[in-house]
Amino acid sequence: MNMRQGRDGRERLVVIGGDAAGMSAASQARRLRSPEELEIVAFERGHFTSFSACGIPYWVGGEVPERDDLIARTPGEHRARGIDLRLRTEVTEIDVAGQRVRARDVDSGAESWTPYDKLVIATGARPVRPDLPGADAPGVHGVQTLDDGQALLDTLAGTPGRRAVVVGAGYIGVEMAEALIHRGFAVTVVNRGREPMSTLDPDMGRMVHRAMEGLGITMVNDAEVTEILTGADGRVRAVATEDAAYPADVVVLGIGVRPETALARAAGLPLGTHGGLLTDLAMRVRGHGNIWAGGDCVEVLNLVSGQEQYVPLGTHANKHGQVIGSNAGGGYATFPGVVGTAVSKVCDLEIARTGLREKDARRVGLRFEAVTIESTSRAGYYPGAAPMTVKMLAESRTGRLLGVQIVGREGAAKRVDVAAVALTARMTVEQMTALDLGYAPPFSPVWDPVLVAARKAAARVRGAQGPS
Amino acid sequence: MNMRQGRDGRERLVVIGGDAAGMSAASQARRLRSPEELEIVAFERGHFTSFSACGIPYWVGGEVPERDDLIARTPGEHRARGIDLRLRTEVTEIDVAGQRVRARDVDSGAESWTPYDKLVIATGARPVRPDLPGADAPGVHGVQTLDDGQALLDTLAGTPGRRAVVVGAGYIGVEMAEALIHRGFAVTVVNRGREPMSTLDPDMGRMVHRAMEGLGITMVNDAEVTEILTGADGRVRAVATEDAAYPADVVVLGIGVRPETALARAAGLPLGTHGGLLTDLAMRVRGHGNIWAGGDCVEVLNLVSGQEQYVPLGTHANKHGQVIGSNAGGGYATFPGVVGTAVSKVCDLEIARTGLREKDARRVGLRFEAVTIESTSRAGYYPGAAPMTVKMLAESRTGRLLGVQIVGREGAAKRVDVAAVALTARMTVEQMTALDLGYAPPFSPVWDPVLVAARKAAARVRGAQGPS
Repeated sequence: MNMRQGRDGRERLVVIGGDAAGMSAASQARRLRSPEELEIVAFERGHFTSFSACGIPYWVGGEVPERDDLIARTPGEHRARGIDLRLRTEVTEIDVAGQRVRARDVDSGAESWTPYDKLVIATGARPVRPDLPGADAPGVHGVQTLDDGQALLDTLAGTPGRRAVVVGAGYIGVEMAEALIHRGFAVTVVNRGREPMSTLDPDMGRMVHRAMEGLGITMVNDAEVTEILTGADGRVRAVATEDAAYPADVVVLGIGVRPETALARAAGLPLGTHGGLLTDLAMRVRGHGNIWAGGDCVEVLNLVSGQEQYVPLGTHANKHGQVIGSNAGGGYATFPGVVGTAVSKVCDLEIARTGLREKDARRVGLRFEAVTIESTSRAGYYPGAAPMTVKMLAESRTGRLLGVQIVGREGAAKRVDVAAVALTARMTVEQMTALDLGYAPPFSPVWDPVLVAARKAAARVRGAQGPS
Repeated sequence: MNMRQGRDGRERLVVIGGDAAGMSAASQARRLRSPEELEIVAFERGHFTSFSACGIPYWVGGEVPERDDLIARTPGEHRARGIDLRLRTEVTEIDVAGQRVRARDVDSGAESWTPYDKLVIATGARPVRPDLPGADAPGVHGVQTLDDGQALLDTLAGTPGRRAVVVGAGYIGVEMAEALIHRGFAVTVVNRGREPMSTLDPDMGRMVHRAMEGLGITMVNDAEVTEILTGADGRVRAVATEDAAYPADVVVLGIGVRPETALARAAGLPLGTHGGLLTDLAMRVRGHGNIWAGGDCVEVLNLVSGQEQYVPLGTHANKHGQVIGSNAGGGYATFPGVVGTAVSKVCDLEIARTGLREKDARRVGLRFEAVTIESTSRAGYYPGAAPMTVKMLAESRTGRLLGVQIVGREGAAKRVDVAAVALTARMTVEQMTALDLGYAPPFSPVWDPVLVAARKAAARVRGAQGPS
C-alpha cells in the first residue's frame, strides 16, 4: 500500500483522468504550488494526455495531418513539470471516508490504494453506444478517443467500398459527415430527430438539412436505427431502420456522450438529473470540501435557464481545470456557469447557437417572442458577402435576450459570441440594438446581423405589449 | 416664401442632409407617420442620398465594381416613400426662433425659407484639407463623396505614372493604401504620428506598420507634410515634408474629417469641444425640444471614458437616424453612447479596437494594467490558424475592462465585438475569463484569444493588489 502522505509532510493531490480538465487542474495547481509543497499524482487509463477530442473529425477528414497534432501536452511534458502521471492505470474505487483511491495497472492487473488530501475527479464522458445487434461489428466506429480515430482511419484506408453511414446528426455527426466527404465517401446521415442539429430549433435545423443535401449528403430524419447488418465475414454491410436499410462499408456512431460517473456514483457522490456530478461554483463536489470535479463528468449551471445542464465541451473542461487547479493550489477561482454557446460547421456552412431554444424556454416557464432575420456577413456590395440567418428569442415583457441561433457561411458562427456576452450580462434586446459592434464593409453590413435581429425582437416585444 | 405649414394642418419635419443619418431619420419617421400626418422635406446639396462613404476605398480599389453599388437607397426610392427630397439644395441658415430654414438651389442660386415644426440636422462632416501650398492641385484627391471617388478613379486611369502618396495613416489612409496597391500603384504613406493607426496604442500601431511594409507599402512616420509640389503643368509631382520629398503621380488626402457644423454654430446651437453638436440621449439638440441631430455632425458619449467624443462612422449615423426618426415620428428610442469600436483592414491584415487606449485612460484619470498576448484565430493544429495579437486594458483595483486592441489576420477584427459588449455591460476582466464563447477547432483555440487576454489581465490586476 502506497502511503507516502504524512511521511514527508507534503500534501497530496490525486487527479483521476488525464485529459483536458484533469491535466489543466494538475498544471494550474503545480503553477501555484511547488513539488516540495504539493505532490500531484494523476491516473489515466489510456495512453494519452491532454488531447483535443474536438479535433478528431478534422484528423479523420485529413485537414489535420497527424494524430499527435491533437495532443496539447504529452505525458513527458507533464512529468517534466513535476506531475506524477501514471498512464494505463485505471482508478476502480474512491474511498471518500478513507481519503484514498484504488487503482489498477491495466496491463498487469495489479491494484493498490493511493491516499489523497485533495481529489480531482475528471473522468470525462463515455460515448452512447446503442444496444443494437451488430453495433460491435468490424467497420462500426465511435470517435471519442485517439485510438477510435486511428481505428476509423484504418478502416477507411482498408475498405474498398465508399459508402458511409453516420448515425446521429448532432455536432459529432455533422462534423464526421464532412470528414467522410473529404475522404471521398458517399455519406448518409441517419437521424432520429425531425431535423439535424437538435441543439437548434427545427426551423433552423431545416436550413442545416438543406445545406447538407446541397453538399451531397443524404439526410434521413425521423429514423430510429434498429440494427446494424453484417455480412458473412462479420463486417458491417448496412444500417437498418424500421423502414429501410442503408448500405454501409463503414458506420460512424455520432450519437453523443454521457457523463462517466460510475466511480462517483459508487462512492456516493451527488449526481444530477443528467447523471453528471454536481459541484459548487468553485467546482467542489457538493458537500465535499476536498473533492473537485470538472470536465465532461459534471453538470453545469445554465445561467439563462437557471438549471443544471450537461454540456460536454473541451472549452468548459479547460476552464474547469483552471478553476479547480487554482482552488486546489490554494488560490481562488470560480466557474459561474454557461450560457450554452456552441459553434460548428459542415464544409462551408457555419452553425452556432447560444442560450435557450424555444423548447428550453417553454420547459423552464419562460414566455418569449421569437424572430428570424436574413442578412449578410459583409456589406451587401462587398465581395464575398454571404447570406446569414439569425434567430433570436427574447423574454416577453422584460425583453431580456434568451437565445440566438445562426446559420450561414463565412463569418456567421463567431457572431454568436456577441449574444453569449449579452446573455451573461442579462441584456435586453432593446439594449442590444445600441451595441457598438465593429463595422467596416469587409466585415459587416452597417447594421450587424445580430443588431438587425435585436431590432426586430425589440419591436416584437414592444408590439406584444401594445402601443407604448 | 414656402409656407405650407398650417395650410393643411400637417406637421412638417425638415431634414438637413440626405445621407445616412438624415435619410434614416426621414425613413423611420415615415414608417411611424403617414404622409397625411407628417410632411417630410429633406434637403441635400449633392446629387446622391444614402450612400456608403465607408465603401469608397473598395470602389476605388476595384473590389466594388460600380459606384451605384454604394447607394443604399436612391432619391427616387425615398420620394416613392413620400419624402419630399430636394437635391442640389443647400441649407444656408437655420432660424431657430422662427422655426424655419433658408435653402438655396445650388444651380439657380434661388433662395427660399421653409418653415418646420421639427428639424433634423444631419450635415455630416467635412474633410480636413490641409492649408498647404498645392493642396488643390490636379491629382490631389479627397475621398469623402462619390464625386471625390469618381474624380480619383479618373485620375488613376488617366495618369501614366504609378506612384501614389497617401497623406495620413488612419482608417481612410490605410484603406486607400490598399486600394492603390490593388490598382497597381507603388504606395507611400506619409504619417505625422509615431506609428500608423493612431487609434491604436503605438505598440499595436507598430505591428500595423510592419505588416504594411510587408505588403510593399513605404511607411513614413513622424513626418509633417509641408507642401505639395507641382510641375509646370500645374499637376502634382511630389509631397514634401521638412526632410524629404516623395514623388507622386497622385496624392490622396486621408487625414480625417471634422463635424460640418457651421450652420449650427451660426444658429447658436450647442457645440462640444470637438466642434460637434451636443445632444441628449434621444438625440435632441440640448435645450431644443424640436431639433434633433445625428451622424457625423454630432459628438457622442463614450460610455467608458464618460466624456463626449467625435466618432464619424456610418454605423453610428444609421443608429442615430433610426433613433431620431422614432422620436420625431412620435415613438421613443435612445442612443446611449459608444464604446469606441472600430475595425479595418489592409489587405489581409485585420485591425480592431474598442474602448480606451493607454493615453485615453490616463487623460480621464483612470489607472490601469495593460497586457498583450499572442494567440491564433483557430486551434493551432487546424489549417489556416493565423496569429493574432490582443492587447487589453483593465482598470486597477476594480479590474473593469477598459479597452481591447487586436491586430491579426482572418478572424481577428470581429473578435473585438466580444469586448464591445463586455465594455457596455461594464464587466471586469475576471468576469470575462468565464465567458462562454463559441469553441470548435475551425473557429477558435480552446481558449479564445480574448479569454487568454482576459486571464492575463485578471492575473495582472490581482498581482498588482498583492497576494489575495
